[in-house]
Amino acid sequence: MSDPRYTPLAQSLPATVPFVGPETQERQRGAPFDARLGANENIFGPSPRAIAAMQDATADLWMYGDPENYDLRQALALHHRIQPENIVVGEGIDGLLGYLVRLLINPGDCVVTSLGAYPTFNYHVAGFGGVLHTVPYVDDHEDPASLFAKAAEVDAKLVYLANPDNPMASWHRGAEIVTAMDALPEGCLLVLDEAYVECAPNGTAAPVDINDPRVIRMRTFSKAYGLAGARVGYALGAPGLISAFNKVRNHFGMNRSAQAGALAALADSDWLTHVQSEITNARDRLSQIAHDNGLTPLPSATNFVAIDCGHDGAFAKATLDALIEAGLFVRMPFAEPQNRCIRVSCGPASDLNQFAAALPKALAAARAATGR
Amino acid sequence: MSDPRYTPLAQSLPATVPFVGPETQERQRGAPFDARLGANENIFGPSPRAIAAMQDATADLWMYGDPENYDLRQALALHHRIQPENIVVGEGIDGLLGYLVRLLINPGDCVVTSLGAYPTFNYHVAGFGGVLHTVPYVDDHEDPASLFAKAAEVDAKLVYLANPDNPMASWHRGAEIVTAMDALPEGCLLVLDEAYVECAPNGTAAPVDINDPRVIRMRTFSKAYGLAGARVGYALGAPGLISAFNKVRNHFGMNRSAQAGALAALADSDWLTHVQSEITNARDRLSQIAHDNGLTPLPSATNFVAIDCGHDGAFAKATLDALIEAGLFVRMPFAEPQNRCIRVSCGPASDLNQFAAALPKALAAARAATGR
Repeated sequence: MSDPRYTPLAQSLPATVPFVGPETQERQRGAPFDARLGANENIFGPSPRAIAAMQDATADLWMYGDPENYDLRQALALHHRIQPENIVVGEGIDGLLGYLVRLLINPGDCVVTSLGAYPTFNYHVAGFGGVLHTVPYVDDHEDPASLFAKAAEVDAKLVYLANPDNPMASWHRGAEIVTAMDALPEGCLLVLDEAYVECAPNGTAAPVDINDPRVIRMRTFSKAYGLAGARVGYALGAPGLISAFNKVRNHFGMNRSAQAGALAALADSDWLTHVQSEITNARDRLSQIAHDNGLTPLPSATNFVAIDCGHDGAFAKATLDALIEAGLFVRMPFAEPQNRCIRVSCGPASDLNQFAAALPKALAAARAATGR
Repeated sequence: MSDPRYTPLAQSLPATVPFVGPETQERQRGAPFDARLGANENIFGPSPRAIAAMQDATADLWMYGDPENYDLRQALALHHRIQPENIVVGEGIDGLLGYLVRLLINPGDCVVTSLGAYPTFNYHVAGFGGVLHTVPYVDDHEDPASLFAKAAEVDAKLVYLANPDNPMASWHRGAEIVTAMDALPEGCLLVLDEAYVECAPNGTAAPVDINDPRVIRMRTFSKAYGLAGARVGYALGAPGLISAFNKVRNHFGMNRSAQAGALAALADSDWLTHVQSEITNARDRLSQIAHDNGLTPLPSATNFVAIDCGHDGAFAKATLDALIEAGLFVRMPFAEPQNRCIRVSCGPASDLNQFAAALPKALAAARAATGR
């Protein structure tokens, strides 16, 4: 009896997880975390109206969700002043990135991103055999000019840019991105990941023409809307590209109560304003904690703060390990030189107090371990 | 400004939906259905404990779900007396079928199924460029012998068999499937879709060795467990094949409250027994309604009944259209000769009473329209 005959590509891929989940770490350490500040989840939570809508919808879960996501797309169209034909809803941005890469990338096709940007995008590119080219961050910012120049150089079909950025929390004004797009090579699609844009200053969302075929924008209910576990993302783009998702997507992939929750969350702009205010306060507090420990917080347009630990990646990793040991779930950038930082999500005072208490000891442990 | 450079395969695919959802039909007709009997959903609903677990989990939806689905896989391993390494959880069987086809099928690779079997499987095969070969049903049953013979003939990498079958509700004893597998050609994986197996007589589940690399079985919480809208399916197979899903799946694709709901549903065996009893009663009632109208109900091991309308596909279609016109959501098989039937899901007496009231008029309308 032989094994299944995998495709050569599938045979070549590693079985992996782009991010190890905090639950896995909790099982490994044999204890739950005291504070969950590592996945840029929104600890302030979703709108109470979204919670109520999802609870109400629970009894209806014997029914499949609407495969057209009609109500949600109608509401999003009104919200963004575009047409439903400009919107595809999917199982988080992760799911939509997978579909997008599948539509464009055959083995050997080139894709460009920044070194140390979103690993799950890279996972999908590798998963369809794409060849990933990277450019460095510039002063902890992703750099549209070098991204688009590299895309021209390697004849990329797809270039990824997150604005605001994860993991560095840096950002560009949306108008600058649109201007930079003049250098986007013909036949290269820009995937502009705006997952954190609701946490950013006004003017960060790129004011692109919704029917511009050169760009697709990714949005999510996982961050400012507080529904990471519901799995609702959406993409905004020209109707032809949006329609192409219907060639490959899992039409019945959406959880029915999540559809209801996203609809209610979108309608509750007061709660979004409240969360934005909480995020601003928490960023200030995280920055103060960093300063109190002689560290440098990076400016943030997201719901997390990257904190420069002042030395190399090994020192930041030692600090991170000590924080995890102390019961705080946090993460750090993967690539140099960004990996001199740790990345801490915004949260309520109780969580940040625990971080404030643990950080001095973690830094002391890191100094002892590294001789810094 | 040019369009994105899609892969040749993506360019060749139609933008489609394998099943038009009832919500779409409701929007088209401008009124909701009075009874929803077309998607083989479980109108008796999920366990009240599952509903409670999902409602409790709603406030936790700011957190991503565990990408390992650890707790659910542990519980499923105990339930099936296998190891967690034999189980992968995904976004419904639809999602898992997509991943499976992706792992095995390159453009031009051959796949075998029955003519008129599950369209979403065919959608995924086409979506990865596979070449689909079909064999006919035999007396309204999928036929393992001819499926496996065709697989040998065309050197198929994958062969699909649903047991019990959708849309005909027919079934084979599991032991017969295992015996028939002696004829499964080397290097061909059997995907055995057991979505409805909890509705079937004891002995229907195929007693395959869980580590047999020739077969992968698909299971779901969408049918007997009543959680179609939650999107929780799983596959059972040899560890090597199960592990391969980690190369391509959307690791964070599962809704967190759905994970909790499936766990609670699995634990409530009393509710499953209750639903099984309700399904048996509803099948009997649907059969009686068919007989009362001079029609032939087919034996069913599922939560629906295929009713032979006694003439050709055009007559069944006219009957179906009249039922939909009357406010009943029902469906019918796509392919001849199975399309002489309509397919009606089990449901409570109130829903079936509406079907009983509407069917004579629908048949009269079909007779008038077709001259039968």
